[in-house]
Amino acid sequence: MSTYVPEAVIRRLPSYYRHLRDLEQEGVQQISSQELGERMGMTPSQIRQDINSFGGAGRQGYGYQVSTLKEHLRGIMGLDREHRMAIIGAGRIGKAVANYTGFPREGFRTVALFDAEPTGSELVTDGATIPVYPAEELEARLPELGASIGVLALPAGAAQDTADRLYRLGIRAIWNFTPADLRCPEDMAVMNVRLSESLHLLSYMMNQMGK
Amino acid sequence: MSTYVPEAVIRRLPSYYRHLRDLEQEGVQQISSQELGERMGMTPSQIRQDINSFGGAGRQGYGYQVSTLKEHLRGIMGLDREHRMAIIGAGRIGKAVANYTGFPREGFRTVALFDAEPTGSELVTDGATIPVYPAEELEARLPELGASIGVLALPAGAAQDTADRLYRLGIRAIWNFTPADLRCPEDMAVMNVRLSESLHLLSYMMNQMGK
Repeated sequence: MSTYVPEAVIRRLPSYYRHLRDLEQEGVQQISSQELGERMGMTPSQIRQDINSFGGAGRQGYGYQVSTLKEHLRGIMGLDREHRMAIIGAGRIGKAVANYTGFPREGFRTVALFDAEPTGSELVTDGATIPVYPAEELEARLPELGASIGVLALPAGAAQDTADRLYRLGIRAIWNFTPADLRCPEDMAVMNVRLSESLHLLSYMMNQMGK
Repeated sequence: MSTYVPEAVIRRLPSYYRHLRDLEQEGVQQISSQELGERMGMTPSQIRQDINSFGGAGRQGYGYQVSTLKEHLRGIMGLDREHRMAIIGAGRIGKAVANYTGFPREGFRTVALFDAEPTGSELVTDGATIPVYPAEELEARLPELGASIGVLALPAGAAQDTADRLYRLGIRAIWNFTPADLRCPEDMAVMNVRLSESLHLLSYMMNQMGK
C-alpha cells in the first residue's frame, strides 16, 4: 500500500477507475494501452507508464485484464470498504451531497448532518433517513457514528474552527465545499471542491476565446 | 487579452482573485509577495513570477496594490460582466446550482432550467423565480434567453447529446457536473466538476495514511 505514485498519476486514478468500470459494464474483458489511451485522450506509452507506476500488471501483446485492473484500483483507493460521512452544514450543498444516491452506491454513506440552525431533525433521502443534529452536539454525537469523513458544507467563516473540532474528534479526512483554505495537521487528508473557482476558470476560458 | 499564461498559473488565477478579494474586504491596500505567499502557501518568488506572467504590476519594495491587482484579474477572467447560465437537469445538483446565491452575486445568473421530466414550471430561489422548461423545448427557448453557459446536471448518458445540441444553439461554454468525458469542438470551453473523483481521491489519501 505504500508504493510511491507520482502526484499527477494519483490525480488520474479516479479517471482510470471510472473508465475501467464502464468497460466492465460494456462487457469488455481486456484492453490494450492503445485502446484505453484513445478512450482517455492519452498516448499508449503514458497509459503503460501510469499503470506501471500504480502497480497494475499488463501483458505484452495482450494488454490489461479490465476486471483485475479495476479491482487493483479499488484496493489502492480504499473503495473496497464502507466510508461513513458526517456532513456539517445542512444547507443546499450539504443536502445535495446527502441526497446524491451515487455516493452510498460507491460505499460513501452519510450517517448524519449537523447544522448550526437545523430546520428539522431528519432528512429523508431516496435510500435512507438521516438524522440532522444541532452543530453544538458534534462532540456528543460524532463518536458513536463511526464517521471517518467530515464534509464541510457551511459558511467559510466557520470552516477552520469546525475542521479543528473534527480533528480533535478523530476525523482524519475532510471533504471541503467551502472556499476556505484549511490549515490542518499533516495527518489530516483534505480534498477541496471549489465550485466558484471552477466557474471562474470557465469564465477565463470564455474570455480568452473572445466569447 | 491574449497574453500567454502557463496552464498551472491559469489554474491558480481564481485563488489569487479570492485572496485579493478577501484582503480588500479586510481593508488591506497593499501587499508584498512575501505576505501574499504566506497566505497562499507559496514562495515570494513563485508569487512574483505568477503575477508577472498574467500581467499584474508590482513595485520593488512596495509590493502590489490589492484593488488594482484584483480588478486586473476580474478583467482577464471576464468577471466584469454578467454571464447567463442555462441548467440542463433540474434534479438535486441542478437545483443546488440554481439556488446557490454566491453565483449571481459574482455575475453568473441562472436564467432557466431544462428537464426531461420537469416536476414544476418554475423554481423559486432566494433571489429570483427561474422557469423550468421541458428538455425538448431547448431549441425553442434557448435563443431568447441570452445564455452563454450551459450547465450539465443530468444523467451521464444524456450529456454528450445535450452538449452537441447546446453547441448547435451557439453555446460555447459548458460546466459539466456529469462524469461523462465530453467530446466538443475546439471552440467550446468545458469545465468538469467531478464530485465522485474528488471523493475517490480523498479515499486514496486516507488509504495511503492507513486510516
